[in-house]
Amino acid sequence: MPDTIPADSIGLVTPQTHHFSQPLELACGKTLGEYSLVYETYGTLNSSASNAILICHALSGDQHAAGYNSMDDRKPGWWESAIGPGKPIDTDRFFVVCSNNLGGCKGSTGPTTTNPETGRPYGPDFPIVTVEDWVNSQARLGDVLGIERWSAVIGGSLGGMQVLQWAIDYPERISHAIVIAAAPKLSAQNIAFNEVARQAIMSDPDFYDGDYYSHDTVPRRGLMLARMLGHITYLSDDSMRAKFGRELREGQINYGFDVEFQVESYLRYQGRSFVDRFDANTYLLMTKALDYYDPASEHNDNLAAALAMVTAKFMVIAFTSDWRFSPERSREIVRALLDGNKQVSYAEIEAHHGHDAFLVPIKPYMDIFHAYMERIIKEVAQS
Amino acid sequence: MPDTIPADSIGLVTPQTHHFSQPLELACGKTLGEYSLVYETYGTLNSSASNAILICHALSGDQHAAGYNSMDDRKPGWWESAIGPGKPIDTDRFFVVCSNNLGGCKGSTGPTTTNPETGRPYGPDFPIVTVEDWVNSQARLGDVLGIERWSAVIGGSLGGMQVLQWAIDYPERISHAIVIAAAPKLSAQNIAFNEVARQAIMSDPDFYDGDYYSHDTVPRRGLMLARMLGHITYLSDDSMRAKFGRELREGQINYGFDVEFQVESYLRYQGRSFVDRFDANTYLLMTKALDYYDPASEHNDNLAAALAMVTAKFMVIAFTSDWRFSPERSREIVRALLDGNKQVSYAEIEAHHGHDAFLVPIKPYMDIFHAYMERIIKEVAQS
Repeated sequence: MPDTIPADSIGLVTPQTHHFSQPLELACGKTLGEYSLVYETYGTLNSSASNAILICHALSGDQHAAGYNSMDDRKPGWWESAIGPGKPIDTDRFFVVCSNNLGGCKGSTGPTTTNPETGRPYGPDFPIVTVEDWVNSQARLGDVLGIERWSAVIGGSLGGMQVLQWAIDYPERISHAIVIAAAPKLSAQNIAFNEVARQAIMSDPDFYDGDYYSHDTVPRRGLMLARMLGHITYLSDDSMRAKFGRELREGQINYGFDVEFQVESYLRYQGRSFVDRFDANTYLLMTKALDYYDPASEHNDNLAAALAMVTAKFMVIAFTSDWRFSPERSREIVRALLDGNKQVSYAEIEAHHGHDAFLVPIKPYMDIFHAYMERIIKEVAQS
Repeated sequence: MPDTIPADSIGLVTPQTHHFSQPLELACGKTLGEYSLVYETYGTLNSSASNAILICHALSGDQHAAGYNSMDDRKPGWWESAIGPGKPIDTDRFFVVCSNNLGGCKGSTGPTTTNPETGRPYGPDFPIVTVEDWVNSQARLGDVLGIERWSAVIGGSLGGMQVLQWAIDYPERISHAIVIAAAPKLSAQNIAFNEVARQAIMSDPDFYDGDYYSHDTVPRRGLMLARMLGHITYLSDDSMRAKFGRELREGQINYGFDVEFQVESYLRYQGRSFVDRFDANTYLLMTKALDYYDPASEHNDNLAAALAMVTAKFMVIAFTSDWRFSPERSREIVRALLDGNKQVSYAEIEAHHGHDAFLVPIKPYMDIFHAYMERIIKEVAQS
């Protein structure tokens, strides 16, 4: 619980929900007849609706990007480092929107939602959703909020893929695309890690083919393993060394299988606490959306061709120690944009935090991010 | 089944077993009252017993390093690429010995062995064994075979750690130490991967606290996950890209959770086939031996001090794309040896195969390996 809300926090925020009764056709061929999106907004939409920013969340993120939902919250939203008064995404200037993706487990329609056709949770029957589907649903949320054009769409990791897809699918509705710690598609190694995570969940006897809800259980073991594994890929070898080294929790080797090294203790804690706040079917869906994303695939693997209709100005940011989506993967995006004579800025930030760096207020990163956002503020003022 | 044995193979070999009735004190404080080691030998020991080579195996390896145990074998031993007539470890010149490590599951005393005190498999009661313990047991095997001094002790990965420990513990019994794709200790990230693998096994409901033998089952799911995860760390991102790319098994996305990408199919196959040939308790023991290994820890983290008494000449080999034990980790060993004015050769081989490169007959690697072994042959001839 924060004793007092920090001055640079947006403070207390309340999630809102919009119910969409117009069906949404999905990439998989199925249709969601109706659905809800839960979202938060920070700041105030100006009279011309020209200062709106959409934040897209990553695998385990949600609509709660900044501030506190209650004074009992132990921690603020997941991107508190970047969103708030005076921060790069300045809530004194911008109207910021962040929604929980379809298939999520924090209030938007997903596997834990009651399927109106059966009266029971969707569970494994929830359709596979893609980055493209998310972008379409976010566009409809923009309609509801009266936002014809986002001054920027911003996201890290899987969120960055949504930003890229926004620029492709809705060029007339996005002025700036800020893509952080992302990639234009997963590598075989990325898919492999996702597959191990999925197998961990799906082979857990408590998974019950995804219908664990009706067995009054959750695949704890599998989801915990998936999260532990994820965490290894979010941190760099260096940051793990700096954080844990080979420190022994009790100062000596015990020659047993209980926790001995600090890093083991950290991973088990991360795994356990994740299980209490996340749904296993949602985790599976998010990893599939990651695996499938590959906008160049419909253009003979030519990313520049996939980006041909893009009009948004891009800011691409990568982190040196990120081995999940290395700078080389960001450079693929930058090169494709340059090949198409698009406007793009690129920053490669020296950071030892690995993939997680995009959530960390590293000064050069925040400075560059801030400077780019200042440019957008000026454009908004002149519009 | 090989229709004919290839000319450069040692051919059919038969594993042998030696039973040791003299107790072995282990690093963990426990004592094995008696134990067996299964081993294979290739080539002929010369009259002065000066041409003997010890091969130390890695995590999932065993005594069957080369040749075929029967004409029904689908594949030869795990290091067939390097051991055989005319190969770097030339069985026309050397007498080569490889034993299954204590705690193993291929015939040496381990968790699957009957505990003489209870009449049931050791299972989880098998003591934790360390690299030091293995080296001590291998030294006793040398005694049995009449080998006072190995012309070389050779190993990759965890096997390389045993080589390093041989040079530390038995300087008078080892002329050359060949350490390939190894590290002087695990990093926090290495330990983290091991921990996820262990948790996968230990959280499998079929693990029964390690006593699955008496429940007539094995923790298949957990061991399969551990192996899948291991495989990702054995390959490089590049080699996975080259091997699988984002190839779809059926040429199209199916929007489901069955195997879609080739890399998923490969990992599941690797996981499944491993379960049929390996014991989960052994896997746990091997990962613990890896985690614990840290010869510098008793010397204020000064590896050069740990190596102070070393007299063996070293050959250290690393592979550029190995991210499990990167070249930087090999260079730590080389620097420590140089700091102590030891004799050391070092080769960093350009290879895209990742950690697995040490098992692959990459030409520059084999050439350098061969050249170094030729030097040993000359020394043996002059002795």
